[in-house]
Amino acid sequence: MAARSRKAPWLARNWQPNQTSEPRENTLLACEEPMAIELDGVRVATTMRTPGNDFELAAGFCYAEGLLAGHKVLDVRYCANGSAVATDFNVVSVSTGGKAPTPTPRLNSTTSSCGFCGTSEIDELVSALGPVSGDALSWDALASAPDRLRSQQELFDDTGAVHAAGVLAPTGDVSIVREDVGRHNAVDKVIGRLSFDDALPAVGMGLVVSGRASFELVHKAWGAGFRALVAVSAPTALAVSTATAANLQLAGFARNNSLTIYTD
Amino acid sequence: MAARSRKAPWLARNWQPNQTSEPRENTLLACEEPMAIELDGVRVATTMRTPGNDFELAAGFCYAEGLLAGHKVLDVRYCANGSAVATDFNVVSVSTGGKAPTPTPRLNSTTSSCGFCGTSEIDELVSALGPVSGDALSWDALASAPDRLRSQQELFDDTGAVHAAGVLAPTGDVSIVREDVGRHNAVDKVIGRLSFDDALPAVGMGLVVSGRASFELVHKAWGAGFRALVAVSAPTALAVSTATAANLQLAGFARNNSLTIYTD
Repeated sequence: MAARSRKAPWLARNWQPNQTSEPRENTLLACEEPMAIELDGVRVATTMRTPGNDFELAAGFCYAEGLLAGHKVLDVRYCANGSAVATDFNVVSVSTGGKAPTPTPRLNSTTSSCGFCGTSEIDELVSALGPVSGDALSWDALASAPDRLRSQQELFDDTGAVHAAGVLAPTGDVSIVREDVGRHNAVDKVIGRLSFDDALPAVGMGLVVSGRASFELVHKAWGAGFRALVAVSAPTALAVSTATAANLQLAGFARNNSLTIYTD
Repeated sequence: MAARSRKAPWLARNWQPNQTSEPRENTLLACEEPMAIELDGVRVATTMRTPGNDFELAAGFCYAEGLLAGHKVLDVRYCANGSAVATDFNVVSVSTGGKAPTPTPRLNSTTSSCGFCGTSEIDELVSALGPVSGDALSWDALASAPDRLRSQQELFDDTGAVHAAGVLAPTGDVSIVREDVGRHNAVDKVIGRLSFDDALPAVGMGLVVSGRASFELVHKAWGAGFRALVAVSAPTALAVSTATAANLQLAGFARNNSLTIYTD
């Protein structure tokens, strides 16, 4: 597996006014490398990601974006890419044996930050996905989730440069913590793990994320069937509208065992 | 112009254990809506952005990604899109009168987080862009930049959900502050403004950003000719390698008038 972090190629230095700058000991930098995702041979995304859990990322992306249309992932593998250095450009191929619908050209022209486009399409999502089901999680569990996530963010401790996502159980336990330079990638990795564990849809579970709650994260949480999304920072207006349509509990500013409730 | 923020559609509530949850007064949410960018009639990107400064975003994206190949932007305008609600799906068209090279299909399949792919391509960037020029900025100026940026982050004050970018002068002044739910969009808006002001390349100037320094931000800073990039959080390994190749000063963890120097 490619490294998730590496030492700075020379000594980074800490600087303050009127002080001699001092070498910063053991500076670790988060790795960030491109990875392309193919579904049944068709390129569906290229993303800058932190190496590691690449198969989860590829399968989770396809699941969360609705590309599988309910079909099982039969195989995930790295593709030969003509590069002498395997990590220079990784291509991961997800196969449903050709059963998933052929991705439309539109998908090829959208960004990974935009698997769908247009607030008016929330209605389409509702009819395609339906509201999420399962018992609501307690606000206690949601409020404690960020601290429990934070205690498992090992790569962030080393580098300060990565986001994290994890699965929140109704008991308050946080598991399947994944880290990545991309917020959406961390979520896709979590969803991919759940798909490999045959644990989707994530009925009655929460998704906890280290950053803000954008539309795309609500969309992914919805697609994976989570009951709740809790974020350390603020949601956007579109995130709140979408969570309402999804029947998804949405909480933000979850810090110091308090939070702000946007939908319940 | 579409709104940059809006009130929550119902009262958000603050919650703490063993307390009655209280309505949160005047909750403002940052807007997040899709926008497509076309160059001479060809779709080159779709991004989720905060409305406002859309023309800067479109022109800045094309400039920073090297799509203009040195040609002037002659016209930027909104396209008719068949939607009754103009803000449902905004399409902004940048025109060079057909002089810019036709964007390759590869661009259409990459994400806005990945204008280029592959660490091995840093060499290609060096030969395409050449190292940045101009006098280095003082570490004093770089260290004070985040506070000066922060004092101008009005939308963040309202919503807590947006990133910011701005231009740092050698004197330490920070201007042209732009905010967006997407880190890369905030930078593109800054670059777009500079292009409209005929102030590119930004020789001897710094770019200050509110978040982390990923590869894509270094790439954009390089493409716009900035001499320095200073970020409030950490850079990635690829960001450091790229900044080194670009001769770009890179500083991170710029907080409380101190910072960490990664390249100089």
